[in-house]
This record gives sequence, structure tokens and C-alpha cells, in this order.
Amino acid sequence: MPYTVKALQKFGPDQPFKVTELERRDPREDDVVIKIEAAGICHSDIHTIHNEWGEAHFPLAVGHEIAGTVEAVGSAVTKFKVGDRVGVGCLVNSCGECEQCAAGFENNCLNGAVGTYNSKDVDGSITQGGYSQKITVNERFVLNIPDALEFDVAAPLLCAGITTFSPLARWGLKPGAKVAILGLGGLGHMGVQIAAAMGAEVTVLSRNLKKAEAAAALGASRTLATSEEGFFEEHRGKFDLILNTISAPIDLDSYLGLLKPRGIMSVVGLPPEALSLHMNRLIGGGKVLTGNNIGGIPETQQMLDFCAEHGIAAVIEKVGVDQVDEAYERVTAGDVQFRVVIDTATFEKAEVSA
Amino acid sequence: MPYTVKALQKFGPDQPFKVTELERRDPREDDVVIKIEAAGICHSDIHTIHNEWGEAHFPLAVGHEIAGTVEAVGSAVTKFKVGDRVGVGCLVNSCGECEQCAAGFENNCLNGAVGTYNSKDVDGSITQGGYSQKITVNERFVLNIPDALEFDVAAPLLCAGITTFSPLARWGLKPGAKVAILGLGGLGHMGVQIAAAMGAEVTVLSRNLKKAEAAAALGASRTLATSEEGFFEEHRGKFDLILNTISAPIDLDSYLGLLKPRGIMSVVGLPPEALSLHMNRLIGGGKVLTGNNIGGIPETQQMLDFCAEHGIAAVIEKVGVDQVDEAYERVTAGDVQFRVVIDTATFEKAEVSA
Repeated sequence: MPYTVKALQKFGPDQPFKVTELERRDPREDDVVIKIEAAGICHSDIHTIHNEWGEAHFPLAVGHEIAGTVEAVGSAVTKFKVGDRVGVGCLVNSCGECEQCAAGFENNCLNGAVGTYNSKDVDGSITQGGYSQKITVNERFVLNIPDALEFDVAAPLLCAGITTFSPLARWGLKPGAKVAILGLGGLGHMGVQIAAAMGAEVTVLSRNLKKAEAAAALGASRTLATSEEGFFEEHRGKFDLILNTISAPIDLDSYLGLLKPRGIMSVVGLPPEALSLHMNRLIGGGKVLTGNNIGGIPETQQMLDFCAEHGIAAVIEKVGVDQVDEAYERVTAGDVQFRVVIDTATFEKAEVSA
Repeated sequence: MPYTVKALQKFGPDQPFKVTELERRDPREDDVVIKIEAAGICHSDIHTIHNEWGEAHFPLAVGHEIAGTVEAVGSAVTKFKVGDRVGVGCLVNSCGECEQCAAGFENNCLNGAVGTYNSKDVDGSITQGGYSQKITVNERFVLNIPDALEFDVAAPLLCAGITTFSPLARWGLKPGAKVAILGLGGLGHMGVQIAAAMGAEVTVLSRNLKKAEAAAALGASRTLATSEEGFFEEHRGKFDLILNTISAPIDLDSYLGLLKPRGIMSVVGLPPEALSLHMNRLIGGGKVLTGNNIGGIPETQQMLDFCAEHGIAAVIEKVGVDQVDEAYERVTAGDVQFRVVIDTATFEKAEVSA
């Protein structure tokens, strides 16, 4: 029998959040019911609500950075039991049969993975995300959260963590590798920590030096201001890998010049505009321009284990359900350092308004 | 004591070739003197002459696809002896000490490799290329040409062969990998043969099907016409790797759509214009856009050995020294199938005109 939980939903791009009652499906035999303890706010949530990434299906609860405890399991669930500490990221289903799923890249499922919100689920319904008290998810898409990670700082790892871990892990960084993290926001602050824990020498690239202290605290060796005159000449050919976490357009030609031969620029921030690129910037030195979109389930678990092992977590501020509209404004204005997480315990006293 | 050989030189971008007498240096202790038996004509030669790749230093003998026999060796030469069958490609020197040289990527030498022609040599002179009877080259940049390869069909391997072998080898193609070769000219016809010999299933992508028969003879499974309506939809997500050998601008967004998740487009043809690219074409599916510029000396030797082992050679037409101007016109007009090679034996009867 379906059950009802409180959720934060939007009814339109410019509408405030409302506390609603949302129906969640009763667990199927391979489902897990999760009591959500913390739900991260990701910039993707805001893009979705604003119809910037296609049409949003309102009313909609967003949120794909979910941490909590298992409250019930279906009869065929083998990986989890009641009480387990778990997380859910950007995906809640995929075909499980294509070559991508078979290889552990459910994020690239050839038959279309099901996103945690605003996606058509296998039963035809529109998925509703983590800004809510509970969620029912197929066990294949549920991750173990190691005991060393608190729920609130673990939640953002399910999106910001895997989005930066996956490209850094993919390219086989050697200890001492020179890694630049371009941008120090929600993604960048995870990238710095993860790259440093992998043994890289990490440089933060930012327009100015305002975040230099924060960068150092996260493990960066230094911060360089890209707006300084002569920056691109002075640092030409210095980096093995640049992880670009900013979603504003950049001058690709110039940034590729910062790479050593065979160096890699991996893009995880998505500017909507087309960028301009001269092919000789890739041909000379055999350089690589690539992108990454979250990661598969096996590597998401690897990432969580890696973070626990290395004492890595998101740097967050916590807000109650009544502060989420304000948090959105602050995120949009760039007025949040790193990540905001919703304390879902505050649902309890919140009044249902719709 | 320097020695004098006949060479074909240009005195300006629009001047005809002249047979000249060129002075070559006496071998230093680590030099090899090579009697040139065949010299390939590469489109790069024509770009250089036309000042399209920077300023050409006239009078200039171009040519960086050189095959011949060792005629003399310096006192410290260990790798070669008189009579050895050898080749020289696009490079004739590099620092030998930087991390790139140490790793066998002399093509990426951090102190600037010396090109076979139109480059400043270590002694300050401007290098003169392979359209000539003999050349003196440091032994580190001399390759062994296996007996199985005739000089004339081996010469183009030194540029067109390594330019396509290197990117195909770099990305670790598995047997059965779906490889598309975009363009079937001098580079593409080598790419088809090499990819097929690596066990890939090779598709040639061309504007139309005019070259389908030639492609099949080289080992391609099929040719597809990119100008056909619906081409990019029909073949979406089908290829593991696309080797782009054409130097005309292409719609990168569309071509990246032909790749499977984590697929690779490697660019070896260089359009002078900047191209436009939406980052979501790389982010979605974690795709890779990269380039390649010839290869290092160790992998050039690997390529020659690979070609010999697999019976791969360039498909060529031979011309005498008096036909090179006409050959340039035909290459520029796209009227040469695959590759033209200069029969350097025709220098003997050619009269020196300048």
C-alpha cells in the first residue's frame, strides 16, 4: 500500500516551495524504503525548477543528494536491512541489461536511466526527489554510507562528490600529479579534497584570490587568480589535469594551453552556450578535452568509501524546510560557500500547505 | 666536410620547384648519412610552402616522409651501419632530456623538437627536407625500415602512418571495436588499414559513396555517406572511436553524437578555423575529444614493425622530380587517391637550374 510523506514541492518556476503530502510507492520486492535524514541542495535542482534543463513536471520535489536510514525492505532485497545507513544520488533506476549497465555505468544506460526527480519512472509516474521525509528506491540504486560519514555532510557526496571523483579517478592520476580545479564552489570544493587525497598537488584556479584561504584549508597547495595579467603565459604547460567545475563559458583555447602534453581537461560544469575551440590546441601535445556526468553505481560506492577512508566530506550549512526558498536565492547569487543541506527533521513540525 | 646533393627547392609560395645544389653537413659522431630512395609528398609540405603554417624560409626543400639506405655513419653511431634500410619522419632532433623526450614523446619535446624542414636546427641553420638525394640526420631520429616494406610505399608511413597509428594505438582498441575513419585520403587510407589490422570493425565516413570500393579494398567493412538525410540520427551512439582525418571544419556536436558513451574522437586533420562545441556533447556519456600530432620515435618504430608484420603499406603513385609541381596541383585539387611519392632516382638526370 502506498504511504504518504511530507515533501517540499514547487508548483511552478517562480512559485515558492510548499510543504505537501506526497504519495510514495509501497516497496516492491527489490525496493528499499529510506527515512531521509538529510537532503542536499544542488544547483541542478534550481536549473530544473527554472525549466533550464527541459520542461519541469510540476508539482515537483527535487533533490538528488539523499542520506538516511533503511526503514523497510522488500522481500527480495539482499543488500540492505532495516537500520542500515544509506544514500541515493541522481539515479533511481536503469535497464540493468545494456552494455553500459553491465559495465557499471548506469549513468550512461543506453535505454535511459531514471533520474531521481522529474524523470519518467518505470511505472510511468514522474519521480519525486529527496526534499521529503522518505523515499522508496530500487536497492540497485541505494549506496552504503560508511559510519565515518555523518548524514548531512554525506548527502552532497551523492552528486557533487561523484561528479568530481569520477573524472579524477578515470584518468589514473599519479602521486604528485599537477591538478588544477577551476572554480571553488559546491563541485570544486569536493574536487580539491578528492584530488589532494589521491596524492595530487592541487591548484585552485579562480578569478581572484578571495577563496585562497578556504582552498588551502581543503588541501590545495595554492590558488591562482586567472584574471591576473599574463596568467596564461606564466602557467603555460604546467598541469596534468584541469577539472573545470564552472558553468560559465571559458576560453577553451587558453585553458588548454595550461596543460602539459597529453594533459586532460575534464568538464563537469555545463555552460549552455557553445564554446569555440581551435583543433590545434588539442592536436599540439595530444591533449584531451572530455566531460563527465556523475558516475555509475559501483564507482559511487567507491567514492563514498574513499571519502570515509580519507576523512573527506562536504562543507555545508544546514537549513530547515522553511528556509529553502531563501537558500535558492543565495545559491543563485553565489552567496553560499560550498553546499546547503536541508535538515529533513524540520518536516515534522512543518504544516502541510497544499 | 659538408657535401653537396641535388634537391628540389621552392623560392617562394608561388614559384615552381627548381633543382638546386644543397649543402648537407658532414656527419657528426652521432649522425647518419642517408641516401634517399623515396620521398613522400604530404599536404603539410604544401601548407608550409604556402606560408599557411607560419613563415616559410626560402629557398626551401620540404619533405618529411623519407626512406633510403645508410651511406655513412659517424664514429659514435651504434644503431645503424652502412647499407641499413632506414627512414626519417617529421623530426630530426629534440633536446633528449626533458620529461617528454625521456618518455619517448620527442614530438612533444618541451624545448622544441626540430622539424625535418623549415625548422631552426641545433646549429642555427634552417632544416632542409627529403626532396633531395641525401640527408644527414642524428641517429636518434632514424628508424629501421623492415625488409618487408619497399622504400616507396614505406616513405609515407613516416608521417601519414604514424599520424594515424599513434591515436589508434593510444586508446587501446579492443578486437571488434567499432572504429570510424572520417575522410579517405592520405591519412584516412592508412587509418583504415591500421585499425583493421588492430582487429577493429572499420567504417569509412565520407560525404558520398564514391570511395566505397577503395575503402573495402583497404579493409573497411563499409562506407557511409554523411550527407545522407538522417545520417546522424541513424548512426547515433554506434562508434567507440572516430578518427577525424579531414582538415575541413565539421559540426563537432553532430559527430560526437555518433560515439558510444565514453567514446573517443581523435582529430588529426587540422582545420584553421575555430569550431563550435556544446559541452553537454562531452559531458553526456563522458566522451573524449582529443588530437594527435605524429608520434614519438619509439612508437614510430612500432608502427613500421606493425605495418611490416600486417602487410600494410601506403597506396602511392610515383612521380619524377620534374612532375612535383603538377603533383602539388593535383593534391590541392583532391585529385590524388591517397599518396604521391617522389622517385629520387630521377634526380640523377635532372639539371641543376639555380
